[in-house]
Amino acid sequence: MAIPRDARITLDPEEIPKRWYNLAADLPEIKPPLNPVTKEPAKPQDFEAIFCKPIIQQEASTERYIDIPEEVRDNLVALNRPSPLQRAYRLERYLKTPAKIYFKREDTSPLGSHKGNTALAQAYYNAESGIHTLTTETGAGQWGTALAMVSNLFDIDTTVFMVKGSYNQKPFRKTLMHMYGAEVYASPSEYTEFGKKILKEHPDTTGSLGIAISEACELAMKDEGTCYALGSVLNHVMLHQTVIGEEAMLQMQKAEITPDYMIACVGGGSNFAGFTFPMMHEKIKGRSETEIIAVEPKAAPSLTEGEFRYDYGDTAGVTPLLMMYTLGSEFIPKSIHAGGLRYHGMSPLVSAAYDQNLLTAVAYDQTETFEAGVTFAKTEGIVAAPESCHAIKAAIDKALECKATGEEKTIVFCLSGHGFLDLYGYDQYLEGTMQSSSIDN
Amino acid sequence: MAIPRDARITLDPEEIPKRWYNLAADLPEIKPPLNPVTKEPAKPQDFEAIFCKPIIQQEASTERYIDIPEEVRDNLVALNRPSPLQRAYRLERYLKTPAKIYFKREDTSPLGSHKGNTALAQAYYNAESGIHTLTTETGAGQWGTALAMVSNLFDIDTTVFMVKGSYNQKPFRKTLMHMYGAEVYASPSEYTEFGKKILKEHPDTTGSLGIAISEACELAMKDEGTCYALGSVLNHVMLHQTVIGEEAMLQMQKAEITPDYMIACVGGGSNFAGFTFPMMHEKIKGRSETEIIAVEPKAAPSLTEGEFRYDYGDTAGVTPLLMMYTLGSEFIPKSIHAGGLRYHGMSPLVSAAYDQNLLTAVAYDQTETFEAGVTFAKTEGIVAAPESCHAIKAAIDKALECKATGEEKTIVFCLSGHGFLDLYGYDQYLEGTMQSSSIDN
Repeated sequence: MAIPRDARITLDPEEIPKRWYNLAADLPEIKPPLNPVTKEPAKPQDFEAIFCKPIIQQEASTERYIDIPEEVRDNLVALNRPSPLQRAYRLERYLKTPAKIYFKREDTSPLGSHKGNTALAQAYYNAESGIHTLTTETGAGQWGTALAMVSNLFDIDTTVFMVKGSYNQKPFRKTLMHMYGAEVYASPSEYTEFGKKILKEHPDTTGSLGIAISEACELAMKDEGTCYALGSVLNHVMLHQTVIGEEAMLQMQKAEITPDYMIACVGGGSNFAGFTFPMMHEKIKGRSETEIIAVEPKAAPSLTEGEFRYDYGDTAGVTPLLMMYTLGSEFIPKSIHAGGLRYHGMSPLVSAAYDQNLLTAVAYDQTETFEAGVTFAKTEGIVAAPESCHAIKAAIDKALECKATGEEKTIVFCLSGHGFLDLYGYDQYLEGTMQSSSIDN
Repeated sequence: MAIPRDARITLDPEEIPKRWYNLAADLPEIKPPLNPVTKEPAKPQDFEAIFCKPIIQQEASTERYIDIPEEVRDNLVALNRPSPLQRAYRLERYLKTPAKIYFKREDTSPLGSHKGNTALAQAYYNAESGIHTLTTETGAGQWGTALAMVSNLFDIDTTVFMVKGSYNQKPFRKTLMHMYGAEVYASPSEYTEFGKKILKEHPDTTGSLGIAISEACELAMKDEGTCYALGSVLNHVMLHQTVIGEEAMLQMQKAEITPDYMIACVGGGSNFAGFTFPMMHEKIKGRSETEIIAVEPKAAPSLTEGEFRYDYGDTAGVTPLLMMYTLGSEFIPKSIHAGGLRYHGMSPLVSAAYDQNLLTAVAYDQTETFEAGVTFAKTEGIVAAPESCHAIKAAIDKALECKATGEEKTIVFCLSGHGFLDLYGYDQYLEGTMQSSSIDN
């Protein structure tokens, strides 16, 4: 039952990517965001109330590569980058599949997920721009934790609006953010006008990412020294996350791995984009035939059941309108859904790529993803985040297809985070009390 | 605020140590365990009711080096070994100390602590010996988690008796062990005769490691195919943990680090032993002047306030008598103590080394160790296990001494695990509800 010592493909800190890859350069037909009031294409100044200038420039950039500041690269070491690419020998054996399964390990960050990659870049640019406070939303808590930690490194204060359902289900995420020095409010909160309005209309709501975003933006708009930071969806976030995929491409090249499938979960789309966009570039250039698969929860299936249209990023309708796959900005996933990935929309870049058939999408119910997570824990020893369990489930399904056909395909998925702070969901699954969270149930 | 990219000193999987170092070879005057009934030096067969033969041989061995089986070395890769040695640049800057601070990262294991190093070896030898079930105790939960996971890799079943106080305070540790397939009982339990006896006498007890060990041993004695596995204290456990120190010695040699201090926390002594014994060997041979410091909680201060005498390893008095520093086998730490390291005794090897002045010891109250943990999280971004916070506190104190004297000393400590499953204690600390847990308060 031993695993070969070459199971882990590592890189040196010097091999941390020197530049981010920007898919916008290779998707010329993407539609611009619209001003929420005039409905005209948004101008950079439309974003100035909530973002600092370097971030706005990156959001609109169509440059193919953007240099990563040395200070950001240095700090990526503190997030344990480069992260390993690892072969799941034991999972393969357990499944009795001829497929080779690899996973990119974003769980090795001290923050427990990939979210630090963009948190670090955003905190850096905001600090450079003289911003003293960042506000943000968080759902399952990975993003709020990441921003709270890295803001610390740049002497920036952080205020986090945490979706109330998660706030109550995951008290230790709050503890973690407190430990890093952040202020944390359950959203909707009494701390903002929009929060008060929602609480009056829906006193029992467990909240949503859309509502929390509205509250965070309201705070950023009120004060010049305060900016808003988003953990997913927007182009600059996808950009920063491409360190994952750039590392993976180098690791696959070194280990002579040619993936048949690259798989990642999608909520807003950031770990998926970061992991797959560099390979998508190769596909666009005709140099790769890898099938790229986005895996979403049936509880919030924006790609597989949403519409491709302009929609607000938040519930209050204060953000620019984004051209994206969406379930509607008023969408609130079932409260019993334990697995993150709760956002109503999808990154405009991921959406445009999906519209152009650069990826396929599949949706799973939470019970089958937790089942996959338990199999992964028993075989590989790693407790995956519920979000990541979606990718594991899809990888297992592809591996079982290979078992049926006898094909020795290569599957590479992104393990976006660990699940040490998500054991509530696993406990429900193991105790048999977890319910289906599909929107059609 | 960037940290240099050389902050992390890594090794390749091929550099995983090939042999364990056995301090017993270099401490000739250690006193043997005694049979609990006859009080005569215990014979190998006295251990056969609870341990398999290869483990008993290692327990009594005075060979200086013991080869690590290749299958164990291979599986150490799955525990993310070799683990990094990392420089705490940000902590140094925050403290404004001229000292250099390094830490050996046992938190990078998917199990979250160093405990997997011996769990793996023990599961391997038991599987080789035809054992189908392992029973054990666990306090804070690190050990039970580790054994549950690795037993899986060798198709061994696991039954864990978890100290009731922790069982109730840390329900997710139980979830984790369930996920890995283990049976978990709150100890004292109705599942054993000894558990029933204790419950009858002390129905409200929150339990202790000594009681949980008695329950686990009772099960092992009842069935031939069942053996007991201990996560600390005994010589073979210390032996298996020396992969930590052997790696650290190689890393320090490569990076030209000569430590003035090596620091680790002690409960039963295993991460301390693993981390420091290879350096202790150098001290015994006159090749090192490193000061080795053991850090214990004031809640269970066996080295600083215990007696060096023969005592039982458990509460029922069924284990052999061990020559060790002990607070008495009936000792139960205050229930408000949140930080692990709850054992009444100390590893006989660590005890003998302490008696021979090869190390110094210091004790801290839990509140000051959590304070150190929060400082570490804010600066280095890593949430340390409460146990490890004891080592951090001692390292900070030494660094502040250097600040006062201006000396540029080098401090290397062992970060024995992460604290993602111990946020309850941090929450108490941050909310100001944590009490002193010193035994004299």
